[in-house]
Amino acid sequence: MNQPQTPAELRQAIRRGEFTGNTSGYAPGFVQCNLAILPQAWANDFLRFCQLNPRPCPLLAMSDAPGETGLPPLGDIDIRSDVPRYRIFEDGQLREEVTDIAHLWRDDLVVFALGCSFSFEEALIADGLDVRNISEGVNVPMYRTSVDCAPAGPFAGKLVVSMRPFRAADAIRAIQICTRFPAVHGAPVHLGDPAQIGIADIGRPDYGDPVTIREEEMPVFWACGVTPQVALEAARPPFAITHSPGHMLVTDLRNSQLAVL
Amino acid sequence: MNQPQTPAELRQAIRRGEFTGNTSGYAPGFVQCNLAILPQAWANDFLRFCQLNPRPCPLLAMSDAPGETGLPPLGDIDIRSDVPRYRIFEDGQLREEVTDIAHLWRDDLVVFALGCSFSFEEALIADGLDVRNISEGVNVPMYRTSVDCAPAGPFAGKLVVSMRPFRAADAIRAIQICTRFPAVHGAPVHLGDPAQIGIADIGRPDYGDPVTIREEEMPVFWACGVTPQVALEAARPPFAITHSPGHMLVTDLRNSQLAVL
Repeated sequence: MNQPQTPAELRQAIRRGEFTGNTSGYAPGFVQCNLAILPQAWANDFLRFCQLNPRPCPLLAMSDAPGETGLPPLGDIDIRSDVPRYRIFEDGQLREEVTDIAHLWRDDLVVFALGCSFSFEEALIADGLDVRNISEGVNVPMYRTSVDCAPAGPFAGKLVVSMRPFRAADAIRAIQICTRFPAVHGAPVHLGDPAQIGIADIGRPDYGDPVTIREEEMPVFWACGVTPQVALEAARPPFAITHSPGHMLVTDLRNSQLAVL
Repeated sequence: MNQPQTPAELRQAIRRGEFTGNTSGYAPGFVQCNLAILPQAWANDFLRFCQLNPRPCPLLAMSDAPGETGLPPLGDIDIRSDVPRYRIFEDGQLREEVTDIAHLWRDDLVVFALGCSFSFEEALIADGLDVRNISEGVNVPMYRTSVDCAPAGPFAGKLVVSMRPFRAADAIRAIQICTRFPAVHGAPVHLGDPAQIGIADIGRPDYGDPVTIREEEMPVFWACGVTPQVALEAARPPFAITHSPGHMLVTDLRNSQLAVL
């Protein structure tokens, strides 16, 4: 198979079951999304959780009504088939991973698409910065912090952050670049001493892989899309669906369209 | 004397010799400038030095022609009398401080007005940040770094930086705020480890006063208007005039007008 060139072509391949892999690096220039699907009875609280915690949970789109399978603002999408790999949760427990959720679809499901760090990583790389998890070919290191999210009903928990190391001048530049993109986590939330946000050992991330931090570099931390997943698992809804990490919803939105200036 | 309310009123009081003090805190909301006055034969190189080093030397205005005593873009100004205190240099040596330079004026003098940190400090305070040199009532600490400026003819030297300590989240916010104001030094040039830019002892500034750095804070460094003064002294022009530190040219420009976004 030739590598798909457009988001629509990539989604078609995913829909046909021909592409079930990690979407990192595919459809460059276009926004990829974290996904959460919840029964209507849980959706309002989750929406409030996103509204209260916009940095870890930047909501880009949600379904117009329960049961709707499209997300028109993001492209010609059938959410039941257009994500390469889904995770199915029951009572907050991961039950299985699947590549299609048509057989699980229900009329009360509400879809949430949240911004993802791929967009700002692309902007950092375009500026000449070294995004270490990319240059070392690993998953970004992520850490559970001591910082509480603002709770909404059953949804609550600690802020999860991703970390990328930079020299000070590049950290300043990264802050400037990411400030333009609040819809994909925006500016970093912390930099420097990891202990100040409750991270005991920077070499042992709670999720993802460790990356090299050079002598002259400091860790820079961004609010992370794993935060709502952790809150969702803790809330233990009877049924929920998310994307599988790295296997994102690829949209027709351009990353540059998310820039607020 | 009542405290002057407008920049024009303040300049009138300065012109009459009634105000000869530090201008910090006066005419809030309005831009104050660093001043350099040089003979025409030295002015082109100094202009190039500013152009090559815009962060320490953000040029806001210069005289239309040698000998001109006004700076129309900045207000109704007579540069011979409208600065509270001037420093007179001969061959790079400070000879005296005066409150009026009418008797020293020459037809070949060119005036340079450069942005000053007062403008961004006001923006930081307006956002609720604690600017330590202000809250402790001292001069901002400044340090000669190991970073070379780009040279222009006889003008060369090390970058001088000012330092304000912040917690990480406030440092990130300060970077966002100051990025809007490139005409008054713009975003910080460094943060964290002082040794990385050649500062051996953060407690012993080369100019100004030390300030408290709390346990959870990091030093944040901005390019400083002392940089061109140091370059000017090192270039040893036969004659030069600057403002005396803290005794600035007060203009009719509003700080908010300098915001690029």
